[in-house]
Amino acid sequence: MGSLRNSDQPSTAIRGVLLDLGGVLYVGGVPIDGACLAVQRLRDAGLPLRFLTNTTRRSRRQVLDDLRGLGFEAREQELLTPAVMARSVLEERGLSPILLVHPNLEEDFLGIPAGYREAVVVGDAGEDFTYRRLNQAYRKLAAGAPLLALAKNRSFQDADGELSLDAGPFIAALEYASGATAFVIGKPSLAFFQLAVDSLGHNAENVAMIGDDAEADIEGAQAAGLLTILVRTGKYRDGDEGKIAIAPHHVVDRLDQAVCWVLEAHHAPAVGG
Amino acid sequence: MGSLRNSDQPSTAIRGVLLDLGGVLYVGGVPIDGACLAVQRLRDAGLPLRFLTNTTRRSRRQVLDDLRGLGFEAREQELLTPAVMARSVLEERGLSPILLVHPNLEEDFLGIPAGYREAVVVGDAGEDFTYRRLNQAYRKLAAGAPLLALAKNRSFQDADGELSLDAGPFIAALEYASGATAFVIGKPSLAFFQLAVDSLGHNAENVAMIGDDAEADIEGAQAAGLLTILVRTGKYRDGDEGKIAIAPHHVVDRLDQAVCWVLEAHHAPAVGG
Repeated sequence: MGSLRNSDQPSTAIRGVLLDLGGVLYVGGVPIDGACLAVQRLRDAGLPLRFLTNTTRRSRRQVLDDLRGLGFEAREQELLTPAVMARSVLEERGLSPILLVHPNLEEDFLGIPAGYREAVVVGDAGEDFTYRRLNQAYRKLAAGAPLLALAKNRSFQDADGELSLDAGPFIAALEYASGATAFVIGKPSLAFFQLAVDSLGHNAENVAMIGDDAEADIEGAQAAGLLTILVRTGKYRDGDEGKIAIAPHHVVDRLDQAVCWVLEAHHAPAVGG
Repeated sequence: MGSLRNSDQPSTAIRGVLLDLGGVLYVGGVPIDGACLAVQRLRDAGLPLRFLTNTTRRSRRQVLDDLRGLGFEAREQELLTPAVMARSVLEERGLSPILLVHPNLEEDFLGIPAGYREAVVVGDAGEDFTYRRLNQAYRKLAAGAPLLALAKNRSFQDADGELSLDAGPFIAALEYASGATAFVIGKPSLAFFQLAVDSLGHNAENVAMIGDDAEADIEGAQAAGLLTILVRTGKYRDGDEGKIAIAPHHVVDRLDQAVCWVLEAHHAPAVGG
């Protein structure tokens, strides 16, 4: 029996954890009960963490400041945003970016050398989506530049409480005009989860994703082969777990319970630990 | 034999003619040889005419002035543009327009009563495609307003010789955001040809379409059941007639030859004429 359990273990043992931010650690600027301690417990257990957010209006530095203000400490390399991911894709492929993103994000792309093959990077540029800038981007695409989309959301809830246009419609416009298909970087894209898993240095089946969005967090992570835990906070609505192709591995009320499940049931101590 | 021919005739006799403008009557601001006389010959033969253009940057009045400047006379009711068609759709359905069109076209919508159910009308607004105006249109669509598209072209050749974004990408953006499907009015839309045929008071099989664009003019008219004649001027390129699902009924070098074909081979004199 002992040897059987041992040979089973590597495929389910959790060696790293991915955490969504909004709706999992905090909601509307207020930390969720027990969330801070839960993150500390994961660190104490020696589990490497990555925070995955789809924000396309805050730079990495700004998100780290936001987290700190809410009582969460995270290192720069632990925070993965679509802009950070886009940067690593650009650098890996030797591409120079043509940016059509929110002004806040421009600092995430500082220092990438110009003069290489160009790629158009589109995020939630808001009022900066002018005809002139979209047309410039279109001409680059028509000349063969690849199209990187930080996310393809249709809309977001604006300050006045109504829905407003997100980046998705403008990406659809550029795709329609040029015939190109955008490489979408944000969750639920497979690439986002794969890059996050790679950065942990573990295999997907040994990494757990904890999120509140059944579609973006859970379905995407399932497709990438991760263990998944859905929390019933934030964006979660009754029955969400039944609306996706494959159910999450586990559904719990809050982050602290998700962490309990990770540590009690599935955490295999590091070899030699 | 005589009776057989007679019973055959109504399905092929031409009792009205639709003419495309650019590429058929003139190219680059210069009338095509013989075009002016050819139009007069159609009028002399008592054939009712309609001029069908996809322009979305010139009002009906402006196009009539342009034609006059080139030596072609046309009455207001003979000229059908996507804006004119949109107006008749709005009036028929009792809709009030929210316009996102080129400023030149606003006069084509003057006098339509406000306060009824709203419809979003999108044309080639160019620099007026701002985030604010697109977002206003999106919110109307999200609230259930129908979407009328004057045309859905991807791009056009701009003053600097390069391709620029036409209305199509912005319509695709609004469709992606709202989940609505645009009712596209310009050629090759079936509705454009049907409305034109209706305005002649004849059946589609007794109406000929003469155009230089195999896809927009010929394929669309074929689908609407018209007789079709492709001219080898304007946008025509070698072999275009073979690139569409159903070949045109006739292919000729120029408008004057198309008119000859209409009058010699197919024009049945009006009953009692």
